Amino acid sequence: MSGTSLCYVNGELTPERAAGVSALDRGLLLGDGLFETMRAVGGRVRNWERHWKRLRNGADVIGLALPGSADDIYAAVEQTLRANGLHAAAVRLTVTRGSSAGRGLLPSTDGRPTLVVRATPFVPYPAHLYANGMRVIVSRTVRRNERSPLSRIKSLNYLDNVLARREAEAAGADEALLLNTQGRVACATTANIFIMANGRVVTPPEAAGPLPGTMRALVCAELAPDIDVEVQCREFGEEDVRAADEVFLTNTLMGVMPVRAIGAQTVGGCVPGPLTRALQTAYEKWLAAGG
Amino acid sequence: MSGTSLCYVNGELTPERAAGVSALDRGLLLGDGLFETMRAVGGRVRNWERHWKRLRNGADVIGLALPGSADDIYAAVEQTLRANGLHAAAVRLTVTRGSSAGRGLLPSTDGRPTLVVRATPFVPYPAHLYANGMRVIVSRTVRRNERSPLSRIKSLNYLDNVLARREAEAAGADEALLLNTQGRVACATTANIFIMANGRVVTPPEAAGPLPGTMRALVCAELAPDIDVEVQCREFGEEDVRAADEVFLTNTLMGVMPVRAIGAQTVGGCVPGPLTRALQTAYEKWLAAGG
Repeated sequence: MSGTSLCYVNGELTPERAAGVSALDRGLLLGDGLFETMRAVGGRVRNWERHWKRLRNGADVIGLALPGSADDIYAAVEQTLRANGLHAAAVRLTVTRGSSAGRGLLPSTDGRPTLVVRATPFVPYPAHLYANGMRVIVSRTVRRNERSPLSRIKSLNYLDNVLARREAEAAGADEALLLNTQGRVACATTANIFIMANGRVVTPPEAAGPLPGTMRALVCAELAPDIDVEVQCREFGEEDVRAADEVFLTNTLMGVMPVRAIGAQTVGGCVPGPLTRALQTAYEKWLAAGG
Repeated sequence: MSGTSLCYVNGELTPERAAGVSALDRGLLLGDGLFETMRAVGGRVRNWERHWKRLRNGADVIGLALPGSADDIYAAVEQTLRANGLHAAAVRLTVTRGSSAGRGLLPSTDGRPTLVVRATPFVPYPAHLYANGMRVIVSRTVRRNERSPLSRIKSLNYLDNVLARREAEAAGADEALLLNTQGRVACATTANIFIMANGRVVTPPEAAGPLPGTMRALVCAELAPDIDVEVQCREFGEEDVRAADEVFLTNTLMGVMPVRAIGAQTVGGCVPGPLTRALQTAYEKWLAAGG
């Protein structure tokens, strides 16, 4: 990899420091866009079909014409990885509605979307977190809005999550859990949550407002079945997390991450618990199998 | 005014088509920033103190260091107005947390904020809307999240509002009212709402989730007192809007705008009603008085 990182913007690869978008871009002005954070292994994006499906669904929800097919956009990602000589990478893909001449919320129909792809060397989460588990808090300032379609797409409107993440940092914690407006658990600021209680593995259903994570989908559809476990989508509360035998978080870059405490209270038994460890192993196998 | 509009970005005035921000700007990537939309009359921003107060409060809420004092930022606005030869203008001021080297939600502490100012000639809303009133719908897809601090600051996270505005457009309406997660009326996508019922003038309190509009504040603190009317901040529901004697919307660029119908149902008596008209007149006097 060369010394200068290159960023893809609308077909051009530019040194990151110089890569720009219009100051009138609706992604900047109104959060009018979508993103995906993906993991490349051996130069290939893993779980791409789920990322693409979520992106396409998000585009349908907000009425955004994506700037190309799945193949076109995958090609832009591959081009960015190759140009940076990256095999193991975190890839951030951002699509916005672009800039339009007019002010106002209503998008003009002739706008051209903006596509940005950035790839950075994959840096695993610190090993001690996998070994000892994360400390989380429950955010007291931000509630996840399950009454908005945005809870179910990965839009650029991430400031609620930034605020809760800052709240976690101020409390000396690694992550913050978000309750929805009904006080039920939705997700963490960058991850989905699973708990094991009474022998059942549960994660909040989409109606509770979690982002439909691609890693969450992988766990439910592939990793858990691999180890003969069934995941149920069912609502639960903070008290259920506190009383669970195991708690873990998932996202594309962290994989399967144990939780050891909520605030000052230890949760679960040994960390990582047997289920968490089995899913971590299943994930490593899945990564190694390529595909 | 010359043919080329100039946009202010971090101290530089650039032709709008070339004005850009970093593709790594957190305003773009995460909606991590704030904005104000202001009205300039005679080359001066009106109601500036309220805009500045809201901006500063928003910066406190999200922990953003503004790139200068009130005077510094006002100077950037004046510079932009002068460079474009504009006296009557709509001014959009955008401040983001800037770009940071790291990925992730947690902002680095050494980031430098981004400041963008755009000024465009002031174009009034169409006269027929003031004469006949707007048609609004009540959004059925988006609820305003009064359980997030973002409901009380003007952040870049505006995609909920964009979605509701698209919903209004699809229904042939001019605006959409947003209910909060409790089903109470919060505001419209770009405006605050006031109703007159049983001789009382009411607007939702901040706890109900409306954006604390600068025009709303002007109406409550100056225009209504000028005509010996008291505005109460009190929660109300969709049914109260439907039964009101007068309904009007306010924002900086529209001033005081009557509403004539919710969906297919006419609301209020004559449009604009006597109160609405008196406030419009008070606003015109306030604008003419300079200050």
